[in-house]
Amino acid sequence: MTTTQEKSANNGVNVDHLLGARDALSDAPEGAKFTWKATNEWVHGTHSESVVEEYFGLGDNQSHKSTFSFSADHPEVFAAEDNGATPVEFVLVGLASCLTAGVASVAQNRGIQLNSVKATIEGDMDILGILGADPEVRNGFNGIRVNYEIDADATDQEIEALVAQSQKRSAVFDVITNPTNVAVTVNG
Amino acid sequence: MTTTQEKSANNGVNVDHLLGARDALSDAPEGAKFTWKATNEWVHGTHSESVVEEYFGLGDNQSHKSTFSFSADHPEVFAAEDNGATPVEFVLVGLASCLTAGVASVAQNRGIQLNSVKATIEGDMDILGILGADPEVRNGFNGIRVNYEIDADATDQEIEALVAQSQKRSAVFDVITNPTNVAVTVNG
Repeated sequence: MTTTQEKSANNGVNVDHLLGARDALSDAPEGAKFTWKATNEWVHGTHSESVVEEYFGLGDNQSHKSTFSFSADHPEVFAAEDNGATPVEFVLVGLASCLTAGVASVAQNRGIQLNSVKATIEGDMDILGILGADPEVRNGFNGIRVNYEIDADATDQEIEALVAQSQKRSAVFDVITNPTNVAVTVNG
Repeated sequence: MTTTQEKSANNGVNVDHLLGARDALSDAPEGAKFTWKATNEWVHGTHSESVVEEYFGLGDNQSHKSTFSFSADHPEVFAAEDNGATPVEFVLVGLASCLTAGVASVAQNRGIQLNSVKATIEGDMDILGILGADPEVRNGFNGIRVNYEIDADATDQEIEALVAQSQKRSAVFDVITNPTNVAVTVNG
């Protein structure tokens, strides 16, 4: 039995466009090949500045509406100047913002009105790894915890299903939970 | 043969402090257990705001010198408002800034003066994955390329060795190239 349901939820995600893009790009898969980019320039000490401006997709070079700049640094407890968030905190921001965008998109697709979505994210790290003090300790996170507090016009079960589906389609969740090849070259 | 070499390089990294911390934390490993944190709040559509302010380390709660806020969003080609960098671009910024901080730190430790360090970073992604159009396509990056242009008072070989050692001790390089567990809870 198929029913046509009026979806009155408005979370600000244009799901019709995304579903249309899914169909269009399935027929023309070259357009789905994106390259995301950033540039980074050392300032002083562990402080660097990154710029996000252009990317490639839909078969062409694309520009963001504006240029996004980010200072990164190490904190004072590492005897650094703390001129920006640490690199690992940028990863946490990427993960949380990816999952939240997914929650909003899935909720829109399911006709669920969101009222508020808040997340706290924590990543545990034993810095004996990055300090080179213990070869048994990894450099990265031992584990990451994300907790969502969501107020939506939906049951607890429906809200949990939103978050589960968001994880299933999240680019950053995949990058963190699965291995990705990184090729680093010098003066290439 | 051991020689004492005067290290005149000044890249702004307090290597003596870091080496001292390595010794001190090796003797008191509880202090090396850090937790990095961020909060995230949905704004509208795929737009969210993240805040980085506090972390735990050296056995106590710590605060950054200032609060760092980040807007994330999807771009206009996804029918979104492009109010910030995309979540995956935050990951690229994290990787580049981590490797660059490492290059500066290793150069300082090796007495190599850096003149300029610039990186471009690109991550390839087939968005048929996140669109749910093709279950064979992963959501995350197919691969990431980082290219460094480094001007330093050193040979090409020494410069390449800096970058190699930076990868070896990079937290974000590890997070991206190796799997990390992410536990997501709701209203927990």
